[in-house]
Formats: sequence, C-alpha cells, structure tokens
Amino acid sequence: MKNYIKVREVSLRDGLQLVRSFVPTNIKREWYKQIIETGFSEVEITSMVPKTTLTQFNDSIEMIKYSNSFSKQLGCVLVPNLKGAQLAFEAKAKKINFVLSASQEHNLANVKMTTSQSLEVLKEIMTLKNSDGLTKDIKVIGSISTSFGCSISGETPETKVLNLIGKMLEIGVDEISVADTVGYAHPKQVSSLMKKIRQNYKLSQIISHFHDTRGFGLANVVAALDEGVVKFDASIRGLGGCPYAPGASGNIATEDCINLLESMGYKTFINKENLQTLCQSIPNWLPNEHLHGKFLSSITTNEQSNKT
Amino acid sequence: MKNYIKVREVSLRDGLQLVRSFVPTNIKREWYKQIIETGFSEVEITSMVPKTTLTQFNDSIEMIKYSNSFSKQLGCVLVPNLKGAQLAFEAKAKKINFVLSASQEHNLANVKMTTSQSLEVLKEIMTLKNSDGLTKDIKVIGSISTSFGCSISGETPETKVLNLIGKMLEIGVDEISVADTVGYAHPKQVSSLMKKIRQNYKLSQIISHFHDTRGFGLANVVAALDEGVVKFDASIRGLGGCPYAPGASGNIATEDCINLLESMGYKTFINKENLQTLCQSIPNWLPNEHLHGKFLSSITTNEQSNKT
Repeated sequence: MKNYIKVREVSLRDGLQLVRSFVPTNIKREWYKQIIETGFSEVEITSMVPKTTLTQFNDSIEMIKYSNSFSKQLGCVLVPNLKGAQLAFEAKAKKINFVLSASQEHNLANVKMTTSQSLEVLKEIMTLKNSDGLTKDIKVIGSISTSFGCSISGETPETKVLNLIGKMLEIGVDEISVADTVGYAHPKQVSSLMKKIRQNYKLSQIISHFHDTRGFGLANVVAALDEGVVKFDASIRGLGGCPYAPGASGNIATEDCINLLESMGYKTFINKENLQTLCQSIPNWLPNEHLHGKFLSSITTNEQSNKT
Repeated sequence: MKNYIKVREVSLRDGLQLVRSFVPTNIKREWYKQIIETGFSEVEITSMVPKTTLTQFNDSIEMIKYSNSFSKQLGCVLVPNLKGAQLAFEAKAKKINFVLSASQEHNLANVKMTTSQSLEVLKEIMTLKNSDGLTKDIKVIGSISTSFGCSISGETPETKVLNLIGKMLEIGVDEISVADTVGYAHPKQVSSLMKKIRQNYKLSQIISHFHDTRGFGLANVVAALDEGVVKFDASIRGLGGCPYAPGASGNIATEDCINLLESMGYKTFINKENLQTLCQSIPNWLPNEHLHGKFLSSITTNEQSNKT
C-alpha cells in the first residue's frame, strides 16, 4: 500500500510498564478493545516478565487469551527470556517481541545477562518455536533497546546496532525494533543510523521505537520516515514515562504521531473519532498518571483564532 | 560563524500576550535580565498594541527604556500599526517587528485592516523611520502571521507568502519572520515553503516562528534547518498557549529548541545553567500558567535508567 505507515500501539505494554498501581484486567480488556476499534494493525498487549519484577503484568496469560478471542489477532507479547517465551507459546501468543540491549550495562540491569547471553537465549527461543508445528508460525520481533544511547553507558556506537541487527536476522527473527529507550536520539543521529541500516538490510523489516523524553520524538519520526522507515511504535497519551522523573514524557504519543503522519499525507487507517475516544478514556482508567499528547487540546484550539 | 543558529526569545511578548493577569513590571525586568544573562542575542521585549486591547503591555514604554539601559541592546518591539511605531521610536526602540497576516481574515480580526492596508502602513512606518536621523538606523522585521495556515481561512497558499516577502523586502525591511501562528504547519509543508523562499530570497534574512499546538514544533524546526534557515523564535517554557484551550501548547519551548540544536551539533552560545535557572523561575513569576517544555524533566531523567 503506497504511503501506508504502520503504527504499533504499545501502551498496554510499554505504557503500563511504569504505572505502579495494578490496572485491573477488565480495564485492560476494554482498553485493548478500544485500541482494536481504533484500527491499529498491531498491539503490544502484555509483557512476560517475572511476576516478582513487574506485578502490572500478572494477568499476562489472561490478556493473551483475551486478545486471541478477537477474529483478527493483532497482539504481540514482550518476552525477555526463555521462560517468558515458553509461557507465551503455551498461552498461544501469535507474535512475540524479544528484547535485548545494545548497552551491555543496560542489558545487565534489565535482564541480568550480557547482550551475548541474550542472543544465545534468542537462539534457544527460535529452536523451541521451530521444533513444534503448533508454534513454528509465531512471528518474532528482535528489539534492540538503547540503540542510540543509554543513561548508564552514553552514546551507542552505530556498529554495535548494525551487528546486532545482522545477528538477530541470522538467528531468524522476522523484524527488528530499533529502540531509543531513554529518549537519547536526535534527528541527525536517527538519519545517520537509518541510512546505514538501509545500506545493509531491508528497511521494511525495521520498526522505530522513540521516546519523547527530551521532546525530540516526532522530529525523530520524521527523520526515520525520510530514510524510508515505515513502522513506528507509539503509546496513547505518551504513556511510559520514567518513574524517577514525575511528569517526564514517555513514548511518543500515538495520537500526535498519527496526526503528524496523516498531516504529511501518509495513510494510517486509524479512525480519528475512535482515537479521540481512546485518548479521553485514558484518564478514567489511569486517574493518577501524568498524561501527554497534544491531539486533544489541539482539536479544541482548532476552531479558535489566535494571536501571532 | 559556522553552525551558529540564532534563537530569538519571545516569551516577554508572544508568551505574555495570552497571560490574562498583568505581570508586574519589576518581574518583567528580572525576566529580561535573566534572559540576557542566559546569552540570547535577541529578545522580544514588549508589544505596542493599544492599551485597551492587551493590558499586559501597559508598561511597554518602560520596558523599552529598561532594555536600553543594558550596554548591549538586544530588544525588539512588536508593532501592529503606525501609532505603535511612533511610540516605539519615541521610546528609542532599536528594533521593531511589524506584523501582518497572510490570511486576510486573520489580519482583519487581529489589526482591523486588510493585508494590503497593513502593507501601506508598513510603508508609512518606513518613511517615518527614514525621515529622521535619530530613527533611520532602527532595524525592522516584517512578520507574516498564518504563513502556513489559519484557523479561520485554512491552508495558506505558498504564493501568498512568497509575494508578501517580496513586497516587504521591497518596502525595505531587514528581515522577514515566517510565522506559524496557530501551529498549522507540518514538516513537509515547511520544507516546501522554505525551498521556494530560498530560490527567491536570501535565507539569512528569514526567521522561522513555530507554535507547538499539535506537537510538530521541533520537527518543523528540523525541516527548516535542513533547508538552511538559521534564525528561530522560541518562548521559554513554551509560553503563548491559546486562551480558548487551557493547557494547549504555545510557542516552541526555548529550552527544548536549544537542547535540540546543541544535540545536533549547532552552536547557540546559550549558557545551559542559566537557561535552567530561567526555566525554574517562570513558575514563580506565573504561578497560574500551564507550562511546557521537557528540558527540566529530562535533566532529572538523564541520570536514571529506564526500561525499554
């Protein structure tokens, strides 16, 4: 489809990851339903992290099963290790997102393994998946956290990311997510890395995942678009902020990303009215969270004149 | 200077334009002083609008005189008509910003004249200025509001803006400000217009003025930068929001714009520590305003690790 840009809605996973109070499963179900009704073609629904690490995802199995009850299955499950993959496969997940970090320090902090060990785990997951007729068709994304920089180890060398992409594709993942986990990237850096990725791999396999920590998120989206990236992660109302900085922005806000893409002439096949409803639902579901995104207030402004 | 980008701080004019309660002059003085200490090379200090229109600028003459008390005079005064220019000249302003709208409807609503009538007024102002040895060296910016679109009349045709630039340069202004008054622009539109401006005029004479109503402000800055624009307006803490939409973003936040430019390798000669102080001062001066900008919270986040 000419001009089509895929936006993956990650609020139920990355967005909730940092919400401290458990969001009841019936709310998550309604949330997922509204996302589907809005027209997203892929949704991160939950995370298979140990229950002791993030209690938010205690209902992960239930959420996978719920997403499977929809005729069109669009759910994707984050998986950090073999155990998580096994559980996801057992629950009949149709797509998983395996995550590792370009920054060794971040990988150790996040999943208690070196990046090389994570790659070995990915191999084991692929072997497990391919050994069974019931799981072999499951799609796999390989996510590279801190692809641009890390708050522990600083800027990430491009060669590190390029090597990891090569290794993960060789292991057999279907897509690669290049993630700016801490909002480190600026547009020049994005252009430069995406140019090099394009020289070596197919950009149709690349997902860009930007955070808006410094407010550069949408500018980074445009930089990636200009190089030919066609898949982006985003989180409704910019959910996903840092727990240590109240009010700090998280992921790029889905609604602003959609608004930007559509303004620039791209097609997202998102229902704007339902998107507005979804935006308005979030404060009811998360009354204590600091929300972001300018789409709602800009609708109000639209009909009003303004001074220079 | 290679890689130097000029950021014009407009909070004391565009930022305060929509603040309903009068900010005491002693606060405005301290505000101006902190701006100067932060290293900005040009500052919009006040607006010569009729006192009945915007009481916020009742102290405009005093503010011009105060800015003149600094050895390096960096103040610029907004002027919408001949009377305003006369008063600014009498107060010994060193630079004025004459504003008209590309949108006829917006110009009528804003200054009660057609755009052609505004051009005639500009001619009268230039004649007045050049007729006196004491005023002839005053610099003049010609601002084009709603250069991309208008909430009343929709998208602005590029030819309209290009014609206005030609006419204002012919009348003798020193610089042109291309203003996205209502946050209508998206990066493709910015690239397209700036390309055409570059083909006809010198980009060194162009100032870009973006609002962040839809969150596209910094992406638009990057688009303009890519075409060669070297001067940008910005307002500390993103002041300048629409009075009809509480919480809606105003101008692009100066601190985020500086952070973006410096991250991308441009030089702004802004003192980051003093910029932080200035950002922190704003809520003390405007306790009831909804503030924006991610610079402060991103500093807090910087030292903290984060999940994917």
